[in-house]
Amino acid sequence: MKKIGIADTTFARYDMYESAVDELSRIGTGYEIERYTVPGIKDLAIASQKLIDSGCDIVMALGMPGPEPIDKQCADQASKALLYVELKKNTHIIEVFVHEDEVEEEKDLADLADKRAREHAENVYDLLFRPERLEEEAGRGEREGFPDVGPLR
Amino acid sequence: MKKIGIADTTFARYDMYESAVDELSRIGTGYEIERYTVPGIKDLAIASQKLIDSGCDIVMALGMPGPEPIDKQCADQASKALLYVELKKNTHIIEVFVHEDEVEEEKDLADLADKRAREHAENVYDLLFRPERLEEEAGRGEREGFPDVGPLR
Amino acid sequence: MKKIGIADTTFARYDMYESAVDELSRIGTGYEIERYTVPGIKDLAIASQKLIDSGCDIVMALGMPGPEPIDKQCADQASKALLYVELKKNTHIIEVFVHEDEVEEEKDLADLADKRAREHAENVYDLLFRPERLEEEAGRGEREGFPDVGPLR
Amino acid sequence: MKKIGIADTTFARYDMYESAVDELSRIGTGYEIERYTVPGIKDLAIASQKLIDSGCDIVMALGMPGPEPIDKQCADQASKALLYVELKKNTHIIEVFVHEDEVEEEKDLADLADKRAREHAENVYDLLFRPERLEEEAGRGEREGFPDVGPLR
Amino acid sequence: MKKIGIADTTFARYDMYESAVDELSRIGTGYEIERYTVPGIKDLAIASQKLIDSGCDIVMALGMPGPEPIDKQCADQASKALLYVELKKNTHIIEVFVHEDEVEEEKDLADLADKRAREHAENVYDLLFRPERLEEEAGRGEREGFPDVGPLR
Repeated sequence: MKKIGIADTTFARYDMYESAVDELSRIGTGYEIERYTVPGIKDLAIASQKLIDSGCDIVMALGMPGPEPIDKQCADQASKALLYVELKKNTHIIEVFVHEDEVEEEKDLADLADKRAREHAENVYDLLFRPERLEEEAGRGEREGFPDVGPLR
Repeated sequence: MKKIGIADTTFARYDMYESAVDELSRIGTGYEIERYTVPGIKDLAIASQKLIDSGCDIVMALGMPGPEPIDKQCADQASKALLYVELKKNTHIIEVFVHEDEVEEEKDLADLADKRAREHAENVYDLLFRPERLEEEAGRGEREGFPDVGPLR
Repeated sequence: MKKIGIADTTFARYDMYESAVDELSRIGTGYEIERYTVPGIKDLAIASQKLIDSGCDIVMALGMPGPEPIDKQCADQASKALLYVELKKNTHIIEVFVHEDEVEEEKDLADLADKRAREHAENVYDLLFRPERLEEEAGRGEREGFPDVGPLR
Repeated sequence: MKKIGIADTTFARYDMYESAVDELSRIGTGYEIERYTVPGIKDLAIASQKLIDSGCDIVMALGMPGPEPIDKQCADQASKALLYVELKKNTHIIEVFVHEDEVEEEKDLADLADKRAREHAENVYDLLFRPERLEEEAGRGEREGFPDVGPLR
Repeated sequence: MKKIGIADTTFARYDMYESAVDELSRIGTGYEIERYTVPGIKDLAIASQKLIDSGCDIVMALGMPGPEPIDKQCADQASKALLYVELKKNTHIIEVFVHEDEVEEEKDLADLADKRAREHAENVYDLLFRPERLEEEAGRGEREGFPDVGPLR
């Protein structure tokens, strides 16, 4: 039995946790889930660290940075902190960030958040249980949340 | 009895410490407060570290970066240092920064600083005493200092 | 017998692993190869760390960041994390990144990725088995993937 | 008896060390001073580390970055390194940087450097000997080198 | 007998190693030199770390970043990694970077690289053998590779 940690925020405007959990349940079994909710994306790194300390074998960090330049700066800080925890704890943390300016219409943002959370949930499952699937897809232009662009040529 | 550390600066133009302490007293009890004042936002990280070394279970770091590009650079350095301390000490540090250019009129800046300090004080209380409240609000588009934007759709 | 680790991604649009392995086989022997495939460039650092923990004497980290500003930010985060692992583990990690906007025509991107992977494979071989070759080429304006620019004057 | 370390550079165009030492002597006693001069601002972090290793209770890092974009990048690197040493050694390092483009006329730059060094020297003294003075000034819009802007409203 | 490490790259377009070694031989004796050549500037940090592990008392890191924005980003990563090694190993690393866009004419670039390497070689010698010379020059507006700008006023 593996344990998957999921860190998320009250700042986000979509409940990506539900999408991730639902997708994981479609894919397979053999894991339990622990959740840790924090105010904003800058708090995701310590939440992830505490999830790993609590026994998680992998963590998903779910966040939705805003569209302003200062939001990009905050997202950069949050991402770097997640990378630091990942390397310090030697445990994969899959960052699932949806930037508000990735789509033009607000109505498309919820779809993007849902799809990205689901496709990264599959990555999490693959890393834990079937890494050979990732190797088969190496260099194939996969995209999470948007259609895959495919390999060159 | 928990201990909440509050680090603040002489550079800031509003006493957010008073707002945070007042709000905490409205919300509940069970904690004591320790303060550490430094010259500027770049000094908040070591102040937070010393507060944690002194027994604080969580820290609020209060700062007001200026509006110039160099101020944004300083704020970025300060934020990254706060994240580093947070992860090194495995203790939540809630960054409460108010940027001078977040509002157009100077008269709105004091209101923003007061509200943001109060709403983050509630986050601090929740993280310490009732984390289930954060989980209930996950993905609901909460904003500190400004009106919540709410969930998508 | 040395061990060369190769980390790559499903995000990339070209299988640079094949180019690197093919080139290494042309250059010489005395090594075995271990592969670790992850979803995106931000996952390359932990993949590299795990490859080194698994006994690799050097690692190639293969990635293809996208053309948008946010992609540059992600590449910066990924590069810094790779440097951190390299210094923590005291083991060379050769970053082989191909940015989608390095060439104007998409058809040139596959060629660039292939050539860069091959020329860095030679660097990896030199670092492992014949460092004196690098010293002979010091200051000579070598470029990986594009024609060498040569020394000044 | 406390020890104050002062790190400075040959790159700077004003001897801020003299200003800082003179101001400290006006404010009070109970300390000795150790100096460490390096070529440029990027060398200030290791100079500060060596000063702390040598017994300093606090360090002033004096530097004057140039006006070009690359100078801002260097200053950012230097500042982050100073923060890293500060947190690693758990010892305050007061960064005193004067950017050449903070004033329009070169003749105002020497005044700014002199004043900033003096006002930060007072911060250093306060942190060492009378931290309650900083707490009294919290949130009051203090500025080092320029006139204080004061609290909002 | 001291040991000076020199790390350089095959990417650079000028052999700054020769300039540095020649200048050191003009200035004085009492040291030996160890060289470590790597492909690019991002590899200079681990080369410097290995030189220090091999017994070097100080390191020169010689590099020539290109003129594009991505080159500036790489130089920033390389510089931060050099700072990290310097602080971790508590050993001076003198970064000698020449940016291709520092001069307008390519013919001036070789001169700049030669002069900068020589003037930093003197800094290295001073740090090792006569630090009092740096203190005498503090605040005097020294520049490496270009004419000194001198002190203000």
